[in-house]
Amino acid sequence: MTVVELKQTPPTGLVTSQMHGSVLRLEMNNPPANALSIAMMQALMDAFEAARDDGAVRVIVLASATPGKLFSAGHDLKELTLHRADQDRGRAFFAKTMKLCAELMQAIVHLPKPVIAEVDGLATAAGCQLVASCDLAICTDTAAFCTPGVNIGLFCSTPMVALSRNVNRKQAMEMLLTGETIDASTAREFGLINRIVPRQYLNQVVMKYAEIIASKSPLTVKIGKEAFYRQAEMSLEEAYEYTAGVMVENMMIRDAEEGINAFITKRMPEWTGE
Amino acid sequence: MTVVELKQTPPTGLVTSQMHGSVLRLEMNNPPANALSIAMMQALMDAFEAARDDGAVRVIVLASATPGKLFSAGHDLKELTLHRADQDRGRAFFAKTMKLCAELMQAIVHLPKPVIAEVDGLATAAGCQLVASCDLAICTDTAAFCTPGVNIGLFCSTPMVALSRNVNRKQAMEMLLTGETIDASTAREFGLINRIVPRQYLNQVVMKYAEIIASKSPLTVKIGKEAFYRQAEMSLEEAYEYTAGVMVENMMIRDAEEGINAFITKRMPEWTGE
Amino acid sequence: MTVVELKQTPPTGLVTSQMHGSVLRLEMNNPPANALSIAMMQALMDAFEAARDDGAVRVIVLASATPGKLFSAGHDLKELTLHRADQDRGRAFFAKTMKLCAELMQAIVHLPKPVIAEVDGLATAAGCQLVASCDLAICTDTAAFCTPGVNIGLFCSTPMVALSRNVNRKQAMEMLLTGETIDASTAREFGLINRIVPRQYLNQVVMKYAEIIASKSPLTVKIGKEAFYRQAEMSLEEAYEYTAGVMVENMMIRDAEEGINAFITKRMPEWTGE
Repeated sequence: MTVVELKQTPPTGLVTSQMHGSVLRLEMNNPPANALSIAMMQALMDAFEAARDDGAVRVIVLASATPGKLFSAGHDLKELTLHRADQDRGRAFFAKTMKLCAELMQAIVHLPKPVIAEVDGLATAAGCQLVASCDLAICTDTAAFCTPGVNIGLFCSTPMVALSRNVNRKQAMEMLLTGETIDASTAREFGLINRIVPRQYLNQVVMKYAEIIASKSPLTVKIGKEAFYRQAEMSLEEAYEYTAGVMVENMMIRDAEEGINAFITKRMPEWTGE
Repeated sequence: MTVVELKQTPPTGLVTSQMHGSVLRLEMNNPPANALSIAMMQALMDAFEAARDDGAVRVIVLASATPGKLFSAGHDLKELTLHRADQDRGRAFFAKTMKLCAELMQAIVHLPKPVIAEVDGLATAAGCQLVASCDLAICTDTAAFCTPGVNIGLFCSTPMVALSRNVNRKQAMEMLLTGETIDASTAREFGLINRIVPRQYLNQVVMKYAEIIASKSPLTVKIGKEAFYRQAEMSLEEAYEYTAGVMVENMMIRDAEEGINAFITKRMPEWTGE
Repeated sequence: MTVVELKQTPPTGLVTSQMHGSVLRLEMNNPPANALSIAMMQALMDAFEAARDDGAVRVIVLASATPGKLFSAGHDLKELTLHRADQDRGRAFFAKTMKLCAELMQAIVHLPKPVIAEVDGLATAAGCQLVASCDLAICTDTAAFCTPGVNIGLFCSTPMVALSRNVNRKQAMEMLLTGETIDASTAREFGLINRIVPRQYLNQVVMKYAEIIASKSPLTVKIGKEAFYRQAEMSLEEAYEYTAGVMVENMMIRDAEEGINAFITKRMPEWTGE
């Protein structure tokens, strides 16, 4: 496997990018807590946008540059607090921050390429929201998760949007109301995490998942990911009308013809992404 | 228990029907894969419609005529591929197929009688969607489930509609993006399956469930099943307004009066279905 | 811990109230089954309204006055049946009952203070709905849950609203269609229950949860609880737009400033609830 530095590495260095085949590994590099400052969220947005536009990227892995510690501790409380000195007591800056955060989380959902969260450490508040917003999440057995905003007077109201779309209500409410930390095993039981892996195998297993998905037709994956999140918000009737149309369009692409022919004739398909 | 052949057995023989008391057992009989060709889907639609209109049928069990192998492998890829030679490259036929499939799945949901999937084998793609569309699902410990369309360039976009209404998001996405097969135990953990039974007891346990439900007032079951799927798509306020009305109408039927009187006077109720 | 009788104890005595610090313990006291008669539902409504308006109350625990037996058996079937003698065969009374029940359940959801169900015994039908409607639920290992309306000809159509917003579809349908009772462990697996505790520790653990939540800013908890249930009914885009606004307003309250300052300077926050 060759490792090539991407040209699009954000200039700030807050997010580092590495290509492993067609898998783009993004590492958050804002020690010690990977706080989601405006600069950090913008760097992530830029990195996701670059990944979206780069035909060589098929799957994105989102990780921390400091494994074993914090995946991300969420919003940058010091940056937010500094703006309490603004004339409007910070309101405009807080609005800017929350808007950018909501855009970042939705950018992951709308990205036409799957994003896998690789979590080795603690993911709190908007950091936990990042995990919940990814399509898949794999973590170590020492990873942990919480939405502790309630402890500091700031309920995790944006994190709950992603969390409650991953986890059943009573479980989400327990995390949100108590602010307590759940371990990897509980997170998997709740549905926040797909798989738990011992630390020494984490990269390997995440890369295995990423490569499996990267081996599929990227156009097919794009069609499917978009359809998944759109139909999730529809009534059953609307969802079937919509996805029946998606299936027809999917049948018309070259990769579906190739894939089905390969399956019928028992050979490997060759994707062109068309 | 007497076994009586139904008059409505579809003439094609693709779906066989047997009555066991008031439980209708439908077996998909399109070897080797129970592929959901147009003819097969139509035969299932006909069988469900006949079951709906037959007052003797209270519960339907949907199974494969070839236990231990494929429950159903989903769409008939050879039939679909033949139509690539059509003038429109198959578009009209694909649209017809997807429309019929969506109608079939919704026919199960809208059927006023409960449908139990009995799965002994592999349920893939639209076959997995069939399982997810049934009200209950019971399988053997060797049953398995997947939505592997991504492997052949055709994302399981209609199966995801049913799957994602059974299974939490990250788990559904794992199945859809990797195309990998989950075992019975994982399917139960995800919420796709109600119960796992050793093969030699499968029929017996499914019949026990079916007979328990068949022993209830069929009118009450009809009212409840319809209300369940309708309220699931409403806001909390709408759902309560709607179901409060359903409860009042349910109270006015003879079977509710009989059932409540029987409960209060500690005797067995006698349903008239009115 | 001091125990003070609240002035607002409903005059009927159907619901008893005790303050434990800032935790209000409501006990249903309508033996033998805590049936939800009109008077009982009204007493609960009154108790929740009093709790909402009492600044000293931060968290409510809902329990039965007769632990180990029935948490609540749901609607009062004898009261309902008496009204079959009405000129309209009971229709108006049934409508009144179902409307009040729907209002009671929504009152718990809309209450700006968290409600924890403490379940030591059997919760059936609308009694199970009460548990599902609470924000959190903790039970003994001998607690049990069912929605058995189908057994008496009256499908649990209002209970299903709360149940199906806690529990995945196939699991909810199994409870509703078979009417069978699930044990505490199954209820926890399904997502209806947060935690199972041996009976001798039940009060202690429930109080620990209640006190943890009561130690947070009540204004922050109020903002968060309201946002949780509102965003749950929105599309992703709407939910993010709404909660981003909620976060900004939350940042502007005194308790958020205090909480964040305390966190940054590593001291305990002092809430004023403003």
